[in-house]
Amino acid sequence: MDRRSFLKTSALGGSAAAATSLAAPAVAQGRITWRMVTTWPRNFPGLGTGAQRVADRITAASDGALTVEVFAAGEMVPALQSLDAVIDGSAEMSHGAAYYWQNKSVGLSFFTGVPFGMTSRELAAWMRILGGQELWDDVYDQFGLQGFMSGDTGTQAGGWFQNELSGIEDIQGMRFRTPGLGGQVWQKMGASVTNLAGGEIFAALQSGALDAAEFVGPYNDRALGFHQVRKHYYTSSFIEPGLATELVVDKAKYQALPENLQAIIRDACQAEYDEVPSEFYANDPIALADMVENHGVTVHRDWPDSILEAGAAASRELLVEILDSADPVSKRVAEGFVKNLNLLRTRTENTDLTFALARQKYFDISDLG
Amino acid sequence: MDRRSFLKTSALGGSAAAATSLAAPAVAQGRITWRMVTTWPRNFPGLGTGAQRVADRITAASDGALTVEVFAAGEMVPALQSLDAVIDGSAEMSHGAAYYWQNKSVGLSFFTGVPFGMTSRELAAWMRILGGQELWDDVYDQFGLQGFMSGDTGTQAGGWFQNELSGIEDIQGMRFRTPGLGGQVWQKMGASVTNLAGGEIFAALQSGALDAAEFVGPYNDRALGFHQVRKHYYTSSFIEPGLATELVVDKAKYQALPENLQAIIRDACQAEYDEVPSEFYANDPIALADMVENHGVTVHRDWPDSILEAGAAASRELLVEILDSADPVSKRVAEGFVKNLNLLRTRTENTDLTFALARQKYFDISDLG
Repeated sequence: MDRRSFLKTSALGGSAAAATSLAAPAVAQGRITWRMVTTWPRNFPGLGTGAQRVADRITAASDGALTVEVFAAGEMVPALQSLDAVIDGSAEMSHGAAYYWQNKSVGLSFFTGVPFGMTSRELAAWMRILGGQELWDDVYDQFGLQGFMSGDTGTQAGGWFQNELSGIEDIQGMRFRTPGLGGQVWQKMGASVTNLAGGEIFAALQSGALDAAEFVGPYNDRALGFHQVRKHYYTSSFIEPGLATELVVDKAKYQALPENLQAIIRDACQAEYDEVPSEFYANDPIALADMVENHGVTVHRDWPDSILEAGAAASRELLVEILDSADPVSKRVAEGFVKNLNLLRTRTENTDLTFALARQKYFDISDLG
Repeated sequence: MDRRSFLKTSALGGSAAAATSLAAPAVAQGRITWRMVTTWPRNFPGLGTGAQRVADRITAASDGALTVEVFAAGEMVPALQSLDAVIDGSAEMSHGAAYYWQNKSVGLSFFTGVPFGMTSRELAAWMRILGGQELWDDVYDQFGLQGFMSGDTGTQAGGWFQNELSGIEDIQGMRFRTPGLGGQVWQKMGASVTNLAGGEIFAALQSGALDAAEFVGPYNDRALGFHQVRKHYYTSSFIEPGLATELVVDKAKYQALPENLQAIIRDACQAEYDEVPSEFYANDPIALADMVENHGVTVHRDWPDSILEAGAAASRELLVEILDSADPVSKRVAEGFVKNLNLLRTRTENTDLTFALARQKYFDISDLG
C-alpha cells in the first residue's frame, strides 16, 4: 500500500477521525445490514484486506441476507475504540486483534499471540479442539461479546536495526519500537521501548528518535519504507510467533440471527484464518527478495544466542507474572495456554521442525526453478 | 477409531462394496440434495471426519438449500472409484486426495503433497495467492471437474521400524509399506516398497511380511495398533511434508448453483483446511505421549544423515523425471510447484523455522503446566 495513505488514515496512531453519526442497521425484506468497524487502515495488507474479505464472504454466502459494511480505522470510530463501538451498539462487529483490549482483560493477549508462545497452527489446535475457544468465550462473556479468530500473520519478523547485533549488550538502552507484551519483554532485556503507531515509525527512524523498530514482516514493512532507513533486518521474531486477528460480534445479536447466518459467519472467519496467512506467506518472501536485491538490505536469520536466552528468560518471567496476578478468568486462560503450549510444541518439534531442517540442509532444487 | 471397523470398511483396501443403485438427486422446493462419495472409512480420524464436517457445514450454512449426504468408502462405490463416480454422474461430489488420481494426470500429486515438497502453509500460499489453484483448474478442466482443498494432515510421521536406524545401509532391501511418490523415493533409496491398504498393515507387520511401515501420524497410527508390533517410531516424514485433501465437484453442476451456494462450498472447504490440521495437531501429540508413556514406544525425531541425504537425492531425481516426462498440463503444474517451493521455503526458513528452533533451545515452561 501507499505509505502516504497509511499515514493519513493511521489506525493505531492519533489521526483517527471522530465517531460519525450513523443510522441504525437497515432491515428490509428480511435483509440485515451490519456495520463492521476495524482497527486497520482500509485495505492495509493482510489485515485490512482480511477484514474486508470476511465481510465480503458473509455477504456473498448469505446472498445479502446479512450484508456487512466495513468501516476502516477512523471512518466511524478511532481504531482503538472498535471494541467499545460494539459494546455500546454503534456497530455490530469489530475486526482487530484481541491483545488491543488487554486493558479490559489481560487474558485476551493469549488469543492473539505472546512472546515465545504458540504458532498459528498450534493456536488453532488449542482454540478449536483443546478448549481454547471456550476460555475465550468466558472472557468475552463478561462484555456480552462473541469472538472468532479471523486471520493470522504467521511468525513475524524481528525488526530493523542500524547494525548487526553481536549480543545482549548491544540492545542496552536501545530505543526500540515494539508494542504489547513483546515490548515488556524487550524492556526487561534492557531496551528502551516505545510504542509508536505504525504510521509514525518511519519518521522516527529517519530522525534518529528511534534506533530500531519492529512492525509486522516484509509485506507490511516494505510498504512503510523501513528498508530506506535501516539495512539490517532480523527476519524471525521471538516475541510474535503469530498474530491472530479476531472478529468480535455482539453476542445477543449474533444469537438472534438464524442458525445458517451464524454458520456463515463462523465459516467465513475460519476460512480467513487460512487466507490471511496465505497472503502473508506468499507476499513476505517476494517483498523480502525485493528489499535484498534492490535496496541493499542484509538478512539476519538468527539472533545472537545471548539475546535469545535473555528474551526467553524475560518471556518466562512475564508469563509467571501474569499467572500470579491475573483476574480469575484470565488466570484460567493463562493456565490453559501454558498447558497446551507444552503439549502442542511437541508436535511442531517432533515433526514440522525436523522436516524443515532436513529440507533446508539436504534438498536443493534452486537450479530447477 | 476401532481398528476392527476400519478393517471391515477399509477404504483403500479391497473390501469395498459394489456400487449401490441410487435415485437421482432429490430436488424439492428449491432444495437440492447432493451425494458426496469419499475415499475414507466413515469418521476415519481427521480424514473421514473432515469429509463429514465439510458436508455438514454446507448443509448448515445453506439452511438445507444444499444438503450434502456422505457415503463413506464402499458405501456407494469403492474408495478409489470416488472420482469416477463424479465423472459418470452417480455422485455430485468426491472427498479424497488428488494424488489418488495420478494415473489420470501426474500433475495431481502436487496438489496433495510430494517428497521434500511444500508444507500445508506453503501449499495454501501457492494455491490461493500465487496461481496454484489456476493450474489445478487446468488439470481438472480436462475431466469437467472443480477441485477445492478441504484439509491437510500437516507433516506426517516417518514410520515404524523394528530397530533404530544407523544409516542408509539399514534400509537396503527392507520391506517397507509406503504409497505413491514417497514409495518411489524409498524404492530409489534401496528399500523393497509395497503399498498395502491401511487396514492390512497391522497384520503384515505382525506376521513379518513387512519389516516396517508408515501410514499417517500418531493420531491415525495408534488407532491401527502399530505400536503393539513395532517400537521405534520416526516422527518426521521427509516424503510427506503434508497431505492435502480435496473436495471435487462436477464443474457444470457447480457453476449452475446460485452464487451464494458456490460461496458456501468454497468457504466450507477453506474452513476445513484449517479445521483438519487443527484436529491432527491437537490429537497427534496426545496419541504420541500415550504410546511413549504406556506402550514402550521410542521416539526418533531425527533420521540418520545418510538416509536424509539419499532421500533428498531420490526426491530430486523423481521431480526431474516428472518435469521431463509429464504431459504439457502436468509439466506446467510441476514447474509452478518448483518455482513457488523455492520462493515459499525461504519464508519458512527465514522465519518459522528459526523461531521454532529458538523456542526449542531456550524457552522451557514445562514446570509451569
